[in-house]
Amino acid sequence: MNTHAAVRELVDRQAIADLIHAYCRHFDQNEPEQVAALFTDDAVVDYGPEAATIVGSASVAATIAVGLEQTFAATSHHVSNIQLDFDGPDRATGVTYLYAWHRYRDGSPDGGRRGQ
Amino acid sequence: MNTHAAVRELVDRQAIADLIHAYCRHFDQNEPEQVAALFTDDAVVDYGPEAATIVGSASVAATIAVGLEQTFAATSHHVSNIQLDFDGPDRATGVTYLYAWHRYRDGSPDGGRRGQ
Amino acid sequence: MNTHAAVRELVDRQAIADLIHAYCRHFDQNEPEQVAALFTDDAVVDYGPEAATIVGSASVAATIAVGLEQTFAATSHHVSNIQLDFDGPDRATGVTYLYAWHRYRDGSPDGGRRGQ
Repeated sequence: MNTHAAVRELVDRQAIADLIHAYCRHFDQNEPEQVAALFTDDAVVDYGPEAATIVGSASVAATIAVGLEQTFAATSHHVSNIQLDFDGPDRATGVTYLYAWHRYRDGSPDGGRRGQ
Repeated sequence: MNTHAAVRELVDRQAIADLIHAYCRHFDQNEPEQVAALFTDDAVVDYGPEAATIVGSASVAATIAVGLEQTFAATSHHVSNIQLDFDGPDRATGVTYLYAWHRYRDGSPDGGRRGQ
Repeated sequence: MNTHAAVRELVDRQAIADLIHAYCRHFDQNEPEQVAALFTDDAVVDYGPEAATIVGSASVAATIAVGLEQTFAATSHHVSNIQLDFDGPDRATGVTYLYAWHRYRDGSPDGGRRGQ
């Protein structure tokens, strides 16, 4: 085992987990600007087939602000099963699981969504 | 990167996660004395506006024992999103997410609570 | 602190977490062969009092394939509270929490199970 390389990867894993958790916490605290600040200018965000693809941190902020103002009264994003693959020291891809609880402004019953 | 300092922080992070998980597991196994043993004598526990603030491990044990005897028939505390900030090598603050499932002794429907 | 030993344990913890998450992901992606490949030939799998004990990766594959074909239309296995105890450098025991969401082929309401 190369101790230095192993520690670097562990530290990088922690930094990625911290980034994912910061997204959740700022979203759940109703802080769209702080959510957007986590994304690069060329980031691509795809919330699935029901929503348009979002490109760049400015668009992320605007989209999430609309969601928080118009749709969600409260949210809680619980992340688990963080799975990361490192392609060399400076690039990683990953999948995480999410349980998202939503309370809606329009009075719909609280919703729970599970996804990867 | 200072490898030794990085490893120390990673080991400390693991120890804090282990402590949080031990709280959950002893609670869910109905072991109030073991829950209390995780707290220092000057620990302050605040379960929110519905409950009085608890100070010290002896009070923690008594309070949890009452809850387990009178209120909860079974519980399951699922922790995620552990977020820790280190202020120097010997002090950290943090927030975690919790999904708590409760079965009640009085026959109320099972409850699920989400919180930070 | 022995830095090398500490790093080795952290790397081992990560590998065990990755293994647990691979089980969940292959199961939830309906890939029974890949689930089974995670188990050794002498692995013993006990899903609790309602199911027969399974021994060996080939039996795991067969059992899970039947479950995915006949019982489950979709599943999502969310792991948390991974608690590991190391008995020397080459052996560990552990407990994790699981929230499993199930959609059934027979049209029963979606189910959520919590366990350790």
